Amino acid sequence: MITRLLKAIAMLAMLLAAALPLRAQGIDVSSPDGRITVTVSDEGGHATYTVSYDGEVVMPAARLGLLFADHHGFEDDLEIGAATEIELVDEVWEQPWGERRLVRDHYNALEVAFISTSGPRRNMHVRFRVFDTGVGFRYFIPEQDALQGDLRITDELTQFNIGPDAKAWWTPSRQFNRYEYIYRTGTAAVVDDAHTPVTFRQPSGLHIAIHEAALVDYSGMSLLALRPGSFEAALRPGSDGIKVHTTAPFTSPWRTIQIAPDAPGLINSDIILNLNEPNKLGDVSWVEPGKYVGIWWAMHIRDRTWGNDGIHGANNEDTRRYIDFAAENGFAGVLVEGWNTGWDGDWFNNGELFSFTEAYPDFDLEALAAYAQSKGVRIIGHHETSGNVANYEAQMDAAFDLYERVGVTQVKTGYVADAGDIVRYDADGVKQYEWHDSQFMVGHHLRAVLAAAERGISINAHEPVKDTGLRRTYPNWMTREGARGMEFNAWGSPPNPPSHVSTLAFTRMLAGPMDFTPGIFDLRPNEKPPLREDMQRGDPSNRPQTTLMKQLALYVVLYSPLQMAADLPENYLARPDAFQFIKDVAADWEESIALQGEVGEYVAIARQKRGSEEWFLGAVTDETPRDLDIPLTFLTPGVTYTAQIYRDGPNAHWDTNPYDYVIEEREVTAATVLEAGLASSGGAAVRFVPKN
Amino acid sequence: MITRLLKAIAMLAMLLAAALPLRAQGIDVSSPDGRITVTVSDEGGHATYTVSYDGEVVMPAARLGLLFADHHGFEDDLEIGAATEIELVDEVWEQPWGERRLVRDHYNALEVAFISTSGPRRNMHVRFRVFDTGVGFRYFIPEQDALQGDLRITDELTQFNIGPDAKAWWTPSRQFNRYEYIYRTGTAAVVDDAHTPVTFRQPSGLHIAIHEAALVDYSGMSLLALRPGSFEAALRPGSDGIKVHTTAPFTSPWRTIQIAPDAPGLINSDIILNLNEPNKLGDVSWVEPGKYVGIWWAMHIRDRTWGNDGIHGANNEDTRRYIDFAAENGFAGVLVEGWNTGWDGDWFNNGELFSFTEAYPDFDLEALAAYAQSKGVRIIGHHETSGNVANYEAQMDAAFDLYERVGVTQVKTGYVADAGDIVRYDADGVKQYEWHDSQFMVGHHLRAVLAAAERGISINAHEPVKDTGLRRTYPNWMTREGARGMEFNAWGSPPNPPSHVSTLAFTRMLAGPMDFTPGIFDLRPNEKPPLREDMQRGDPSNRPQTTLMKQLALYVVLYSPLQMAADLPENYLARPDAFQFIKDVAADWEESIALQGEVGEYVAIARQKRGSEEWFLGAVTDETPRDLDIPLTFLTPGVTYTAQIYRDGPNAHWDTNPYDYVIEEREVTAATVLEAGLASSGGAAVRFVPKN
Repeated sequence: MITRLLKAIAMLAMLLAAALPLRAQGIDVSSPDGRITVTVSDEGGHATYTVSYDGEVVMPAARLGLLFADHHGFEDDLEIGAATEIELVDEVWEQPWGERRLVRDHYNALEVAFISTSGPRRNMHVRFRVFDTGVGFRYFIPEQDALQGDLRITDELTQFNIGPDAKAWWTPSRQFNRYEYIYRTGTAAVVDDAHTPVTFRQPSGLHIAIHEAALVDYSGMSLLALRPGSFEAALRPGSDGIKVHTTAPFTSPWRTIQIAPDAPGLINSDIILNLNEPNKLGDVSWVEPGKYVGIWWAMHIRDRTWGNDGIHGANNEDTRRYIDFAAENGFAGVLVEGWNTGWDGDWFNNGELFSFTEAYPDFDLEALAAYAQSKGVRIIGHHETSGNVANYEAQMDAAFDLYERVGVTQVKTGYVADAGDIVRYDADGVKQYEWHDSQFMVGHHLRAVLAAAERGISINAHEPVKDTGLRRTYPNWMTREGARGMEFNAWGSPPNPPSHVSTLAFTRMLAGPMDFTPGIFDLRPNEKPPLREDMQRGDPSNRPQTTLMKQLALYVVLYSPLQMAADLPENYLARPDAFQFIKDVAADWEESIALQGEVGEYVAIARQKRGSEEWFLGAVTDETPRDLDIPLTFLTPGVTYTAQIYRDGPNAHWDTNPYDYVIEEREVTAATVLEAGLASSGGAAVRFVPKN
Repeated sequence: MITRLLKAIAMLAMLLAAALPLRAQGIDVSSPDGRITVTVSDEGGHATYTVSYDGEVVMPAARLGLLFADHHGFEDDLEIGAATEIELVDEVWEQPWGERRLVRDHYNALEVAFISTSGPRRNMHVRFRVFDTGVGFRYFIPEQDALQGDLRITDELTQFNIGPDAKAWWTPSRQFNRYEYIYRTGTAAVVDDAHTPVTFRQPSGLHIAIHEAALVDYSGMSLLALRPGSFEAALRPGSDGIKVHTTAPFTSPWRTIQIAPDAPGLINSDIILNLNEPNKLGDVSWVEPGKYVGIWWAMHIRDRTWGNDGIHGANNEDTRRYIDFAAENGFAGVLVEGWNTGWDGDWFNNGELFSFTEAYPDFDLEALAAYAQSKGVRIIGHHETSGNVANYEAQMDAAFDLYERVGVTQVKTGYVADAGDIVRYDADGVKQYEWHDSQFMVGHHLRAVLAAAERGISINAHEPVKDTGLRRTYPNWMTREGARGMEFNAWGSPPNPPSHVSTLAFTRMLAGPMDFTPGIFDLRPNEKPPLREDMQRGDPSNRPQTTLMKQLALYVVLYSPLQMAADLPENYLARPDAFQFIKDVAADWEESIALQGEVGEYVAIARQKRGSEEWFLGAVTDETPRDLDIPLTFLTPGVTYTAQIYRDGPNAHWDTNPYDYVIEEREVTAATVLEAGLASSGGAAVRFVPKN
């Protein structure tokens, strides 16, 4: 463990490339532990990188490059230029909140300048950082004569050679539902296109996850198959067909390759965060992790509506009831959706209906915010745009001003719109459509986060652009959705399968926190007829396909600094014994350790509560019941802990018996091996409290 | 059967839309037989069409529209304008060559003008033609004030609602290998993106195939899933990201929806041809269908090379040998690949190496062409560009001039390059990359076809843009590849599976002729070690996964006016009994009738030789052996025919016993039911000769 702040930058070498036999072998840079090596080459005039692990090539030579409209790009006829450098960085930085307080940033770096040998003289730099847990690289295009004026990137040539026989876990990147798909599994050879993070396991057992870090003023990258198991970066085009509008100098986002000998190693990597810039917001003590409840699930199960139609959820009476419940049970926030006008028409197709400042008549924002504060609770605001970003940006300042004035410090935003259907207006006043991960939306999200930060407000974005670790730079961008969350268990077609969470942990969660909204206690199908025909969505037999204990384990397995207890208060009060775990569990952590797991099958994660000696453990499995032996080596040696164990009962099964569970206490130490018996789609949740 | 030229255009009605209750029900147009109805509506301000079959909606309301950069497009706030019209067309036209001589064009037409009700006033026309076998529609954008200047199409909003539960047969549209994929099968819900033609079978058994016709000065359309089983037209963007550059007035290609109660009905439709313009080339008697052999398979099985390296295939001696073989066995042409310089370097990545006028020293084009002519045979020319269209267009005139001068009247062109890797140079001299189905390549192919037509040369394009029926308008564009052909059985990874041909027949072949290059007689793997390491491609255990009889059946099943006998002459001479069928079979037809079949399983097709009373029958099956009962009702009643039957033997099996076959004669009439026993991946080929 890292226990002290260490900062050591050692400049190891300044190398003149001219002095190296570059053509024959390329330039190597290795991880601090020497296991991962990246070899950069210009053989055949192509910029390439090769990744080796323990001396074996695991990602064969793959192309690098950029193409532009109207400007010569970087593709062929390249050679490595005069100077490169290698540094060793080893430092530790502190997160204001997060899955661990101290993050070690430890890597060797290499910057390679590729010079064109035909056409106008120009150069492209590629900056590599090789960590013990993977590789990051980005393009840096300096200002230069041949690349004056507007640069329109038409293609990024970055390739990733995984191999056709690797197993893959991915979601498709070109369909309507943004990132919200059941994960697909198969060999890498059958992956046509994939959102990142996408995770592969090579036949050797080596795990590789591709993603990106620090996505700023660029469009999002997905992977497109070039050959079976070989992928090219596909940048999302804007409505004008251009992938990225920029000017030199510019840097691309980091392309990240997490590499680990086992699946938990992917989770125990901080390279995404490390590749982002440090906090630019200064004092962010106003960004407060915590648990929350909300007027939300009631709409998903059709007890309430967002619109003002007789069963309007966001009414004064219900909101006060939720505030009381939150205050009584230690929740910091109460989310209220459907508080503002605009929900009564066809809002999905007409986001211009939404006002972000006008409340429905039965919702007194100011009075409720004051009432919440009087109880030591906060209202969590809500901005659903239905993807009409034009309408939202026009009202954004006023919207955040209102929340600042009434003391709302956290806002959930929403971009419910089909992928490619984000609305903006161009300079001619023509309506244009953008993707959720377009350069336009990358810019929009940052504009919203900065506008919120000016008012001391934090953001939880739903239907967002994917996370690339920008919470390090903008710590008020706390969490987001960006995958199938709990709501799909209310109305998804089909609901999330038993393998969903054990897949998320090794894919989506590598990107950063997710507002999955765990903790559904009423596991029965919501089969009552809808009040109105248009309220019926999906299959009425839907329900969470988990045991109750798996619902508890989600609070540890799926990290979010804003963690919801998503069910109705009455359902928690009906099972106070199990509810106790949700009341006890932390939302901010001193340390996190993925202990064991296999992608899509099971995972066990331990986390130490921030500023506390308490630890929590969560373990979940897919359809297959498992008996996990979990050595508690993460506990402080010599200390005895009371383990408050919430586990599946002997007859538990997600489908037939989700409520068979046992809650028990026992004394454990770091030497104990905990036997966690997980039922089919079951889980275990444990709180470890030091005895003294 | 249609036996006379009939032309009858009846204008049924001129309707004023204002007089119709449009909002409530839309405007209907039905096929002449009344089974297919298209309903066009502007409900909710959206332009939509709905397709019904026998009174049931089979394709629910789907959007129509176009979006532009910098101009208001056609999406929302549309209403049907003042005038529409319905015509009944029933005419018959004659093909100079083809799968049938006389083609009946028989449809009802409807033109709907959608007028914008917001923003600048503008209008979009959609022209529908409803045939008994399907629907075609296209956009017509008139010249108008609001759409002046360059129009850049950023999206075509056309949707196709098939339904998630239909079965689909498709190839992916966004990967490297152009159209050359093994067909995928699954429900429509799992189709992310698909090239057209893509074929669906709805749970009712109704077959629907989506494609396009008359693709001119526009980019190719593929389908992209919007929702499971619901698709949007995805136009291929150019290197600048724009999908189509145009100006008003313009018409789009026709979007085609073939509809049939059974699989053979898809094949027995001429709507793709009917939706193309008549012949624009005048006298095309110089376009000559026929069979050919060539110096080609020898390279694929590594007996010869394209380059000039000791085992150069295109040498004078071998070419004379092939000319002699062609003359002795009734073949009209001899293709010679690798005759021109450029094949010795890394031609795949550097198409600039190719000269289209300079022959290798061991290939005397002029002398060989003259020798061929003296034998009544023609040399078929070859232009491989490896996708460097810039290099090809610079040499194109000289290249066709050379062939015209020496009497080469048919040229096979080639665009071997990864999808998206076609090279052109933009106005700034910057190398840009285009897709095979981009607007640029659509234009290039037509430029090549017209340049060839000026010299009396016909084109057989490999790695082409897909066929959309332009052979009607430009009859010298005879055939093309555009799917996995026989070559994949030499080196494909894996080779074409037993179901491949029975899938092609109902998918790719709906677009038009394919130069599949059938007739491989040596069905053994080519396991000899390669002469050079770089000659090894794919798996050396590859072989055609068919019986010998299935190879014969391909000559009838897979229509091409230029039909190759692809194997080495010695392999034909070793089996003269089976070879006789290839010598006898026609390449140009009076009539063609798909008799029976199921997509991906089996198909039986009968064709009448052009200008003859002879008929031919081909039947193939997938892995499953089948006993087909084929009523010979296509034969002329009252005539007795000698059926020369080439069929699988009782122990035939593609894998274990491909050479077990029976050749026999029997007398048949139109009243005979032929029992065709097909082995696993087997086939039957029959020639019917009238007795008298």
